[in-house]
Amino acid sequence: MLKSSPFLYVLNEMLTNLLCNQIKINIMETKAFQEYYPDHLSHCYGCGTMNEHGYQIKTYWDGDETVTRYKPRPYQTAIPGYVYGGLLASIIDCHGTGSASAAMYRKENRPMDSEPSFRFLTGMLNVKYIKPTPINTILELRGTIREIKGKKVIVDVRVLAKDEVTATGEVVTIQVPDRYIKDIIEKGNG
Amino acid sequence: MLKSSPFLYVLNEMLTNLLCNQIKINIMETKAFQEYYPDHLSHCYGCGTMNEHGYQIKTYWDGDETVTRYKPRPYQTAIPGYVYGGLLASIIDCHGTGSASAAMYRKENRPMDSEPSFRFLTGMLNVKYIKPTPINTILELRGTIREIKGKKVIVDVRVLAKDEVTATGEVVTIQVPDRYIKDIIEKGNG
Repeated sequence: MLKSSPFLYVLNEMLTNLLCNQIKINIMETKAFQEYYPDHLSHCYGCGTMNEHGYQIKTYWDGDETVTRYKPRPYQTAIPGYVYGGLLASIIDCHGTGSASAAMYRKENRPMDSEPSFRFLTGMLNVKYIKPTPINTILELRGTIREIKGKKVIVDVRVLAKDEVTATGEVVTIQVPDRYIKDIIEKGNG
Repeated sequence: MLKSSPFLYVLNEMLTNLLCNQIKINIMETKAFQEYYPDHLSHCYGCGTMNEHGYQIKTYWDGDETVTRYKPRPYQTAIPGYVYGGLLASIIDCHGTGSASAAMYRKENRPMDSEPSFRFLTGMLNVKYIKPTPINTILELRGTIREIKGKKVIVDVRVLAKDEVTATGEVVTIQVPDRYIKDIIEKGNG
């Protein structure tokens, strides 16, 4: 029947494409930003999937916001019962660089494993501690892309614990060529 | 002979006191700020002497500057060969709160284990990453007390690696009563 009607055929094609793309998008969304990083960027103590000692944070899109969830370990404490501020700074930082990269790919409507790659380093990290962050919960970091200007992306991050914002962060990231990163790795390990 | 001359006796007493105080000062200086923290403040992941998983940074006076030296562990990396930015933020933070506390005791010319105690929490932590920080060296953090105003102390920190400043930090700390800290610990663990 479909083939007998050009209109229905086109409609069917459109619907199939739409569904397939939706499924593709959904599959993509289950993969964290950090899982797209190449090996030489996967050793980071905060977000590297290959750093067995690290925090291994995972960040995803949730609409126009980026989201990381992290369960602090009992010893990542400042004072008993509360999260260490340096840990918050650390995961805000990695959440920021991951979000900056994802935002640039999204802006260009490209998947995160496509070339040319978008790599970001942190230029400035500003954290405001609003109230003590309880440790016995899953922290939620929510990021919004404040600005994309040339090679600079600024990400605003909120840290939520038990639905309360306990800290906020501003991550000023700078895009660098992948070649630059490979060069300094060679230099640092040469 | 000394007892026979009141002048020499007094001189001897003065010299002895001077020497003893000097020795006392030297002994004090070998004890890090963090080693004066009471038990309930010694669990911090960054500087707690009782946190076996933590960084256990130690900060001392060096003239008017405060100094922390830290050897990063190989896995505390951002990209191979370089220190993780979140670690730098973390140790800048703890260096800052320790320095703030020490500065207040010094201002009052009191030893760090005297009462009433000076406890500081971080209100804001601002870090600027200037260049990649090599990991195969001992990092030196040097702090200066920019401002002491009421309950607020601002500490400026430089991170040096192989004699180069690779990052700077501004730690805005707020003095809180020890009772406040004990209360939130009780609340958080109740």
